[in-house]
Amino acid sequence: MNALETLSARVAERKHVCVGLDVDREKIPSRLLESDAPTFEFARAIVDATKTHAAAYKLNFAFYESEGVEGWRALCETLGYIKETAPGALLIADAKRGDIGNTSKKYAQSLFDYFGADAATLHPYMGVDSLAPFFERADKLNFVLALTSNPSAADFEKLTLEDGTPLYRAVIAKAKSWNERKNVGLVFGATQLGELKENAPLFGELPVLLPGVGAQGGDLSAVAGALLEAGVRNFLINSSRGIIYRTDGEDFAEQAAAEVRRMNDAIDEVYRNVGA
Amino acid sequence: MNALETLSARVAERKHVCVGLDVDREKIPSRLLESDAPTFEFARAIVDATKTHAAAYKLNFAFYESEGVEGWRALCETLGYIKETAPGALLIADAKRGDIGNTSKKYAQSLFDYFGADAATLHPYMGVDSLAPFFERADKLNFVLALTSNPSAADFEKLTLEDGTPLYRAVIAKAKSWNERKNVGLVFGATQLGELKENAPLFGELPVLLPGVGAQGGDLSAVAGALLEAGVRNFLINSSRGIIYRTDGEDFAEQAAAEVRRMNDAIDEVYRNVGA
Repeated sequence: MNALETLSARVAERKHVCVGLDVDREKIPSRLLESDAPTFEFARAIVDATKTHAAAYKLNFAFYESEGVEGWRALCETLGYIKETAPGALLIADAKRGDIGNTSKKYAQSLFDYFGADAATLHPYMGVDSLAPFFERADKLNFVLALTSNPSAADFEKLTLEDGTPLYRAVIAKAKSWNERKNVGLVFGATQLGELKENAPLFGELPVLLPGVGAQGGDLSAVAGALLEAGVRNFLINSSRGIIYRTDGEDFAEQAAAEVRRMNDAIDEVYRNVGA
Repeated sequence: MNALETLSARVAERKHVCVGLDVDREKIPSRLLESDAPTFEFARAIVDATKTHAAAYKLNFAFYESEGVEGWRALCETLGYIKETAPGALLIADAKRGDIGNTSKKYAQSLFDYFGADAATLHPYMGVDSLAPFFERADKLNFVLALTSNPSAADFEKLTLEDGTPLYRAVIAKAKSWNERKNVGLVFGATQLGELKENAPLFGELPVLLPGVGAQGGDLSAVAGALLEAGVRNFLINSSRGIIYRTDGEDFAEQAAAEVRRMNDAIDEVYRNVGA
């Protein structure tokens, strides 16, 4: 199965929750620090507990990169474990890369060939030739940042262009034009509910990754409702801290799984309410 | 010395050349592949030969990341070697990072604390809160992408805003407003000569990193002239492939050094012509 098929299969089961693995040594239960590989052990427990409920796992590269070579080793082991243990879940490298063509080609090799991710997140600022080496990979999914979840998305993403539309809408339009291989998607912040309602009807066939539910305050049911009402089915709603750090007790993984199930139930209720 | 002082000291000697270390196993002389650490040996030879002539070294993270954990190890060793061998040169982590605040904080730790870089390149798309963890580092330099050297810079960077100015000019204006700690700079493509002439007078105190000379075709003397005529002194002109891959013979490092000297001489001639 290619990445889009993996996503579509999960979505057909009404599974839309992406578990964000922002694995931070300072936040994981302290007893794990006695292990040789604390961040791996933490992620493994989360994945074991959530693998039948989650639609996707999103690995935040920054949290691993801050630990240098050892962090990259843990990232590699963690991605390998997820691929083996939860083959039906989409494996997203949340690395937000983007550079000139010959350099982006190397980033694509890193994320897709070395780490074996199914999908990546990408910065659109430098335009299509900076993304093309990713788009050449027909079996992958490439989520391009459109409107992000953070407050300063207003600085540039929401700037009004001469035609009266915001910059992020130009990204959405370009992304649709780049989707010849059915492997382009969007990142759209779950905190941007008004903009989501307005723009979801424009997404077309593009899968959407929505961060910002949980610690950032996005409203899960409202977000799912906006998407389903617009006919968007291939969406993933990510929560990171809101799932993986519910407790620092022994039962952190069970609590994470309970939260994913709760999110699944809430989305299922939205399906029923919308009649989708 | 902080990063700005390091840059200023080099610039005072009319040294403006940044050696771009896009170290690619497929392009380095084949005899180096017999070594245990080919990319490190290649970079070491280049640095040894160029250290008195170069103003800065720019490490392209993608080329190392495509080799995974071993690539990161080589990157770490290479950065450490440059810091020790060429302490007067600015050490730039060309990683083009940018994410929400708690994540960018981890990227800053990776580039500045783990790798010990003096400077980083950053994507502006997500706005100031995605850059703030970098800007908090008063001793570093943070080069924000304004107008890049690649053709598809036209896709978004050059889009016209409602006030009639291009998006990249809004980035320049914001970057100036973010420069309270004198640690913000710009990336401006050396291939964009018309735009450079028009915008250099707006750069103010911001240091500028200009990629695109060499393989990408930017005109060194014209670029240096546009900057000096606008009164911009803190600039670095980067060439990567045009310096490090002049030959695959035994004398690749000497040829790289000769090219850096040739670039220095050309810039020196521009100083004389401009009367700066």
